[in-house]
Amino acid sequence: MQFDTIRAIQWQDDKLLLLDQRKLPGEETYLQYHSAAEVAAAIRDMVVRGAPAIGITAAYGVVLAAQQHVASLSEHWQEALEADLDMLAKSRPTAVNLFWALAQMRQVIASKPDNPVVTLLATAKTIHQEDIAANRSMGKLGADLIKANSGVLTHCNTGSLATGGFGTALGVIRQAWSEQRLTAVYADETRPWLQGARLTAWELMQDRIPFDLIVEGAAAALMRSGKVQWVIVGSDRIAANGDVANKIGTYSLAVNARHHGVKFMVVAPSTTVDMQTVDGAAIPIETREPTEVLTLAGQTLAAAGAGAWNPVFDVTPAELIDAIVTERGVVLQPNHDKMQAMMETAS
Amino acid sequence: MQFDTIRAIQWQDDKLLLLDQRKLPGEETYLQYHSAAEVAAAIRDMVVRGAPAIGITAAYGVVLAAQQHVASLSEHWQEALEADLDMLAKSRPTAVNLFWALAQMRQVIASKPDNPVVTLLATAKTIHQEDIAANRSMGKLGADLIKANSGVLTHCNTGSLATGGFGTALGVIRQAWSEQRLTAVYADETRPWLQGARLTAWELMQDRIPFDLIVEGAAAALMRSGKVQWVIVGSDRIAANGDVANKIGTYSLAVNARHHGVKFMVVAPSTTVDMQTVDGAAIPIETREPTEVLTLAGQTLAAAGAGAWNPVFDVTPAELIDAIVTERGVVLQPNHDKMQAMMETAS
Repeated sequence: MQFDTIRAIQWQDDKLLLLDQRKLPGEETYLQYHSAAEVAAAIRDMVVRGAPAIGITAAYGVVLAAQQHVASLSEHWQEALEADLDMLAKSRPTAVNLFWALAQMRQVIASKPDNPVVTLLATAKTIHQEDIAANRSMGKLGADLIKANSGVLTHCNTGSLATGGFGTALGVIRQAWSEQRLTAVYADETRPWLQGARLTAWELMQDRIPFDLIVEGAAAALMRSGKVQWVIVGSDRIAANGDVANKIGTYSLAVNARHHGVKFMVVAPSTTVDMQTVDGAAIPIETREPTEVLTLAGQTLAAAGAGAWNPVFDVTPAELIDAIVTERGVVLQPNHDKMQAMMETAS
Repeated sequence: MQFDTIRAIQWQDDKLLLLDQRKLPGEETYLQYHSAAEVAAAIRDMVVRGAPAIGITAAYGVVLAAQQHVASLSEHWQEALEADLDMLAKSRPTAVNLFWALAQMRQVIASKPDNPVVTLLATAKTIHQEDIAANRSMGKLGADLIKANSGVLTHCNTGSLATGGFGTALGVIRQAWSEQRLTAVYADETRPWLQGARLTAWELMQDRIPFDLIVEGAAAALMRSGKVQWVIVGSDRIAANGDVANKIGTYSLAVNARHHGVKFMVVAPSTTVDMQTVDGAAIPIETREPTEVLTLAGQTLAAAGAGAWNPVFDVTPAELIDAIVTERGVVLQPNHDKMQAMMETAS
């Protein structure tokens, strides 16, 4: 498979390297991380973003914490890690992959392995590799849903930069493109952070997949034109009933897709599914600083003194979703029972 | 009325002054125009924008043309103006107010007045003043539709900057605010040109009307929150059946408004209604350069080499519109017969 060259999260020589996504596409800079505190700040400040990528990064953050506390790795080393795990958990509220990855690492800690650093690193690497493998599986499952000669629209960035590699929604688009199913790929620029214009466009350019960016406001006109048959997005948390939290703007796309008879696909690893969250109303939605809307790269866009409401995720109810694709399988017209059955399937 | 201090179009000492809206809110610069060619370029390059403002500007452009051709204002002066009128007509394709204003000026020219410059200037000033008066009337008619304790969402800029003064949709919001009907005002930032963030925010700040900007992607979540009861927008052309062309993103708001039980109001002077255009499909929709999406103030946003689809208007079908407000009256649930009856009412 040619379409998988980017690795935004790398473990190298006892430290973590993260591709600074705030600087893309202008600069490709990898930053080095040596402590969990640094990693928590990197997640909060969006050096790394995308639910699966945040989970993987947090897992490596726990390894860094273990390394740092190596002097205290006596009988009480578990306690020494607690503060760092809490700090990582508080970095961002919506993506459940973060909490899932930390829970995996906590299990290893609780098992009191002889060599905690080695064992935690092996677990983090497994989480990373399994995410890539899940993306490959989802790519095939999702692409199978797309008829030949279809156009697709995606939102935000769900590619190699948002995951361990290959991507979720963008993985499906990569796979469908490689199978020559697609006539057109459109990507929302995705304000305010411009993940589409900066990151998705950068990935698609590297893979030489032709595409057009649009502003979010043009999505309805695009759907009315008949040029897209599927909207394909990722997720930061999927509730037990199939409600989906994802990047702000997703819900508007889902409402418009239903209105225009365009199908709506959500692609996310099963680690994004949170059966403990009953429905979308129970998902905590992060609101970030107004400055993200009011400025761009340090330049003020809006009139001085203007305020802004900046929720960075929204919830799409299950009834607007045609398919949820995980590595465990495809759930059509999701509801609680179908989600539960999917989660009980071996991955 | 305190809320009406801005005049973006001014006739002064035989020349036209336009507030350069490309520079707002950072700079308040008035540019001077002495010829129709300069005015056509100003419209094309969006020094001035907004359907009513474009019409008024074009009318003054014809006066400049008449002044310039003063030497040839012999018996053949009408012909001398034709090329300039054609050039102005080609500056932008969607807003019908442009063609309406030019038709008014053509009528004056055809009547062969003794003093063409004086007569054309008087006509242009009348067009300008009648637009302001129409906005005042629409402000009251539109505000009357809004129940006390309502929240509103608007799109693009439809205020003093987009018109002769006071505004269409923003005029209704100004009026409703002055009548203390509003609990909250939200404005879409309106990509790609950011008319909301740059222009609407600037006007609302000057009038001390509190508001929050949102990215277009947040409009659906806002509607779901129950905080807005009306979406209020302007228009660049209203077809005979009540279909409405307006800034890209309007149609998505209308689909979402209907989905959420939020009402949808279009506010435009009767000069925006084009009974010669059967329906929305017959309205020419301008597509502008991809660079408007891919860059901001000279700074590249998107990955190098990325393309973009940049339609700058879309069409909202009449069936998604609850009220069209003109200075001639209010049309609820618009259709062809109601639009025709309204247009036959004296203004």
